[in-house]
Amino acid sequence: MDFSVAYADTQTSARLGTLGTAHGRIETPAFMPVGTLGPVKGIDPHDLEQLGFRLMLNNAYHLYLRPGHKVVADMGGLHRFTGWPGAILTDSGGFQIFSLARLCKITDEGVSFQSHIDGSAHFISPETAMEIQEALGADIIMAFDQCVALPAETRVLEDAVRRTTLWAGRCQAARRRTDQALFGIVQGGLDVRLRVRSACDLVGLQFDGYAVGGLSVGESKDEMYRMLDATVPALPASKPRYLMGVGMPGNLIEAVARGIDLFDCVMPSRHGRTGWLFTSFGRVLIKQARYQRDESPIDPLCQCMVCASYSRAYLHHLYNVKEMLASRLNTIHNLWHFSDFMRRMRAAIAEGAFAAFRESFYRLQDDPAFHEADAAGDAGDRRATPPSRRGTHIC
Amino acid sequence: MDFSVAYADTQTSARLGTLGTAHGRIETPAFMPVGTLGPVKGIDPHDLEQLGFRLMLNNAYHLYLRPGHKVVADMGGLHRFTGWPGAILTDSGGFQIFSLARLCKITDEGVSFQSHIDGSAHFISPETAMEIQEALGADIIMAFDQCVALPAETRVLEDAVRRTTLWAGRCQAARRRTDQALFGIVQGGLDVRLRVRSACDLVGLQFDGYAVGGLSVGESKDEMYRMLDATVPALPASKPRYLMGVGMPGNLIEAVARGIDLFDCVMPSRHGRTGWLFTSFGRVLIKQARYQRDESPIDPLCQCMVCASYSRAYLHHLYNVKEMLASRLNTIHNLWHFSDFMRRMRAAIAEGAFAAFRESFYRLQDDPAFHEADAAGDAGDRRATPPSRRGTHIC
Repeated sequence: MDFSVAYADTQTSARLGTLGTAHGRIETPAFMPVGTLGPVKGIDPHDLEQLGFRLMLNNAYHLYLRPGHKVVADMGGLHRFTGWPGAILTDSGGFQIFSLARLCKITDEGVSFQSHIDGSAHFISPETAMEIQEALGADIIMAFDQCVALPAETRVLEDAVRRTTLWAGRCQAARRRTDQALFGIVQGGLDVRLRVRSACDLVGLQFDGYAVGGLSVGESKDEMYRMLDATVPALPASKPRYLMGVGMPGNLIEAVARGIDLFDCVMPSRHGRTGWLFTSFGRVLIKQARYQRDESPIDPLCQCMVCASYSRAYLHHLYNVKEMLASRLNTIHNLWHFSDFMRRMRAAIAEGAFAAFRESFYRLQDDPAFHEADAAGDAGDRRATPPSRRGTHIC
Repeated sequence: MDFSVAYADTQTSARLGTLGTAHGRIETPAFMPVGTLGPVKGIDPHDLEQLGFRLMLNNAYHLYLRPGHKVVADMGGLHRFTGWPGAILTDSGGFQIFSLARLCKITDEGVSFQSHIDGSAHFISPETAMEIQEALGADIIMAFDQCVALPAETRVLEDAVRRTTLWAGRCQAARRRTDQALFGIVQGGLDVRLRVRSACDLVGLQFDGYAVGGLSVGESKDEMYRMLDATVPALPASKPRYLMGVGMPGNLIEAVARGIDLFDCVMPSRHGRTGWLFTSFGRVLIKQARYQRDESPIDPLCQCMVCASYSRAYLHHLYNVKEMLASRLNTIHNLWHFSDFMRRMRAAIAEGAFAAFRESFYRLQDDPAFHEADAAGDAGDRRATPPSRRGTHIC
């Protein structure tokens, strides 16, 4: 993997970069859709490519449990198994173990837990996390980290940072494949001092990229942005920076302004399945009765195939009768919204117009002309309630 | 609508025809996929077109209940509402009322029933069935008929035939739109005399086409074919003939051999969702453990995009973890199988090779070389258990 920064914004820390992988080049800042068990739910690789994505995320924890990393390896690795021709990043499984699995027991050696599927007993250490991710065969793999639920006492956070550094070093030592990039994950909760310590520890270990983990778990936006303000300057400018499990469009802008290059979030697909549609002027909740005879597209400014082909009335009907196609079309629209949003953000950075893009985003979200259809006023990103602990990171 | 027969097989009653509609020309014999509430579950209009379909079926009963035929009319009719550019046939709702709805009360006036969704009370007569189907706006609409569950006493079947004829005349009288073709539906259970009487009654009323209804409801194949042998000769050669709710590939061949031009069935989509995949050598039940590491496509002879892109191992995994994409990909494969099967059947008729096509179908189903993967022997169409009353016609 190689990474280069083509342009750095002068007013913010936003930057335009290119991530080169064996499965294509990715323009950054980029958003990764999440394929928990292979595909983004209901979406095939051809769809994802059409939507403009070149990098997606697969969950090591879920694929380790089903079908098993050895099956995936025997079938030629994730790219061949799933048919996705673009690049893949696998998370290490740490977040899922701490949030989904049962009876977690953490020691410096690793984590024992019970599968959330069948209660079977498992043990994952930094070494097995590397073994699993090498078998899955993604382009970018993640160090095994300890993610702490917030709020947490300082000594708990301190111990998790210490252990995350210890495990990061063991991940590096355990690697066998040289054709995968390995990213370290910064922890530290909402403690600036610990965030900086964690970042410095990992930078000392020289990873191919750095992720900011343990955020988007219920904290406020201001807290999230404060953590980025503290952490990002401690990371090398020459390496990609990845904010895990984020997020809403407003979060993406603010994190890019603070120097983040990569994101992943289940929000476009999960919200799509519940009928929450992202638009340039806030959200459309397609189940609402007001859309029953609404012939307009989801978003008049959107150029996706769903907005080109279907009315809100039809999508309302499909959602209402629980048609599988509703989930698929809503997900396609939302994914396009995110993909197009990042594309426009990159164009703005390239043109030195990132600040104007950021302002225009907030202006449009507040424009009453756009809110006729959502008079309740709960239309915008900035008004959304914070995602719950389990709400944004896992599919 | 116009219909012409281009070529009639010399050894059987198979024939090659063209059905002209305002939404395109359809080569017959043709199979119609079923979009109960608009779309075939999980499949969008573009997919259906790519799969080679030019005519699909929508269920008047389901669309009458949700979103309501008036909503569809207000949104410009089914084509505009669903985005399907091809031709549409709506069934009259009779079959669904008798099989799905509760507390049906039938008089010569019409049928009172309770919705299977919310128990609300409804009344549908030949006149309202026409009103509903004119509002929905399909290219081909069906007369309102009385479908009798089998086995049934002769006097019940006689009464249903009498009422079906009565209602057929009232459907013709109630029509307002002149841009939709109207088909009559032959009833009569498994009674040859009643089948012929029903057919002759309807032919006297001069419909644009004729359907054979009340079959594929649990009777044996031999009984079904015997009814076709009796009924089809009573129908005019110049009009399209439609066998409703059928069926398995073997049924399609045998019915084409007896002069049928059109079919509809939920089998490719419903079976797809349950992991039953149609192949040239019988069925593949993708959930079986034997496919966990099987790198081959579903059917080595299939040219669909699923067989071109995915292994049985991946489809097994997707089915196993209940991924929505499993239903979609399995349905696409099955729909392609049916579309391609009909295309090859039409080519065979055109080349005067229908008898050879029919023989080769049965030979391939019995070829042990193809059955390595399905040693239990329950691989073929001819060995399948008869569909249940509710099993094949409704989605």
